[in-house]
Amino acid sequence: MRRKLTLKQIAKEMDVSIATVSKALRDSSDIGLETREKIQAFAKLYNYKPNNIALSLKNRKTKNIGVIIPEIVHHFFTTVVSGVEKVANKRGYNVIVCLSDESFDKEVINMEMLASGSIDGFIMSLSKETQNKKDFHHLKEAINQGMPLVLFDRVAEEIYCDKVVIDDAQGTYRAVNYLIDTGCKRIALITTVDYVSVGKLRTQGYINALEDAGMKIEQNLIVKIEDTENCEEPIAALFETQEFDAIFGVNESFAVTAMREAQIRGYKIPEDISIIGFTDGILSKNSFPRMSTINQHGVEMGEHAAEMLIDKLEEVDEDEYYRTEVVKSSLTIRESTKKIS
Amino acid sequence: MRRKLTLKQIAKEMDVSIATVSKALRDSSDIGLETREKIQAFAKLYNYKPNNIALSLKNRKTKNIGVIIPEIVHHFFTTVVSGVEKVANKRGYNVIVCLSDESFDKEVINMEMLASGSIDGFIMSLSKETQNKKDFHHLKEAINQGMPLVLFDRVAEEIYCDKVVIDDAQGTYRAVNYLIDTGCKRIALITTVDYVSVGKLRTQGYINALEDAGMKIEQNLIVKIEDTENCEEPIAALFETQEFDAIFGVNESFAVTAMREAQIRGYKIPEDISIIGFTDGILSKNSFPRMSTINQHGVEMGEHAAEMLIDKLEEVDEDEYYRTEVVKSSLTIRESTKKIS
Repeated sequence: MRRKLTLKQIAKEMDVSIATVSKALRDSSDIGLETREKIQAFAKLYNYKPNNIALSLKNRKTKNIGVIIPEIVHHFFTTVVSGVEKVANKRGYNVIVCLSDESFDKEVINMEMLASGSIDGFIMSLSKETQNKKDFHHLKEAINQGMPLVLFDRVAEEIYCDKVVIDDAQGTYRAVNYLIDTGCKRIALITTVDYVSVGKLRTQGYINALEDAGMKIEQNLIVKIEDTENCEEPIAALFETQEFDAIFGVNESFAVTAMREAQIRGYKIPEDISIIGFTDGILSKNSFPRMSTINQHGVEMGEHAAEMLIDKLEEVDEDEYYRTEVVKSSLTIRESTKKIS
Repeated sequence: MRRKLTLKQIAKEMDVSIATVSKALRDSSDIGLETREKIQAFAKLYNYKPNNIALSLKNRKTKNIGVIIPEIVHHFFTTVVSGVEKVANKRGYNVIVCLSDESFDKEVINMEMLASGSIDGFIMSLSKETQNKKDFHHLKEAINQGMPLVLFDRVAEEIYCDKVVIDDAQGTYRAVNYLIDTGCKRIALITTVDYVSVGKLRTQGYINALEDAGMKIEQNLIVKIEDTENCEEPIAALFETQEFDAIFGVNESFAVTAMREAQIRGYKIPEDISIIGFTDGILSKNSFPRMSTINQHGVEMGEHAAEMLIDKLEEVDEDEYYRTEVVKSSLTIRESTKKIS
């Protein structure tokens, strides 16, 4: 049985990265001429057909939308997908979801696969690795060939397309302010590493709020976590070494893990320690006490993204300019914070 | 711009259901001859091309696997997808995920879309509506045309294909037995409506365990919930009207909601009420106290399903027979149950 040659196989065969193959086949000058020619010759020899987005665009409408998310076991991304579904179905489109698993290579492979005739346009949130590498050639390529793209949540300035984001810095600012208003004096921050765009923005919101209140930024109270799945240890270390009366977590996993750590150590929530998390997901709603959160409105973000994309596809929006829609987060006060007296 | 005609549009235009159109285009005798001919004529007139699975199979390998799950905002299904991804990527396949949103029509539409050249084979869990209707023509059609299919979790006897299930009845039996062994005398069951195959099996496991222990089955202690999203009211009603010292929930959402309801009413967990949930997801791991659960091994189920499908695709498995792989659940005792003395 004859198998279709994939980007990955070419990369393996030629002992180069997937990105190199992808760029070489597009004749990008990022890749040295010799390597480029070698890869092109190999692809030709084995009859590899790179997707031809422009061609597929002219010839047919698939009525399918492709969504690429970094992780599926992550409540926020799944709520965005359900928002996309809602609008897409109403307007007669199907939704195809692919995962990048936070990997740059998988993002490239998925785009390649979907763009080759399966879909009319993309909705995406960038993988961590893509944000770290700052290599956006696959996205720029799709845009240049006329494939509409909407980025959400994890976006990049360098990519010119429609975007849907939340007011990450401002939302965090409001939440940290709330903690200050309820009398908290030492507020710890549990955040991601800086290259994750939303983590960086939320960290900035925290810093701004403290500065505007005339409070000192203490680096010891800021924990930056690389691997969300394994946040227990660094959070326990924070409790071990520092004193504080409030915690802000840039996602709900951090916030819920911190709440549990506090409860195990016998602290009362919110009397001893107040906690707010970014993202209002099922963990926050089901925690005991219920978590006060910043509601990220995932469903709404997905709905906006789908409306923007379909407007472009159906030429309702013939605007040449790109829009960035900022969804306003809201602060939901539940039981893990004190009341303003 | 010329749009592709969809099944849905034909159904709307002809004022019949999507299933009727789908069957009529396959010339199924389920549909009256007159209607069949009308629909076929309409499809011909507008140049509608039903997917030709057999054709796409002969002509190319896409190296893509299609996964259709009922819901994305449901931890168990997302863990299965991550298991499928793991094996698929290792063996050189991409994964495309589509959602049925528990709707029969969306299941049919998604299969139609994916089968028409995007993928080599399917991994699926049936929508509630499909299980309720017992209309499996879209699945049988795919199988008859030689498209490999693996069903997981929510399966149906009527469909002849490879399957991956968990020992739903036996797992529940073991869990209820554990409650009995720790001295619980009145065990409530929070379950789904009967047509959901796994709910029915788990209910059966509960009944078997009580009967084997010589305990009476009390219908008042069994709550059957239709809509998982709105389980709070019926669970509160159970607390309002009945006395019990243990609860078994057939999914973690039911179990966690019951735990919270008990805590609000001042019951101590597990001293006053013991709780076990089926499915060991993030809610159970993050509840306080941590929930004792039946681990459904979603990642493992996804891995098995992907191995089975790819073996068929690559003719490693040339067996004409179909296998049903039963993944053994395991009981994880945490803090919401008493210890065996």
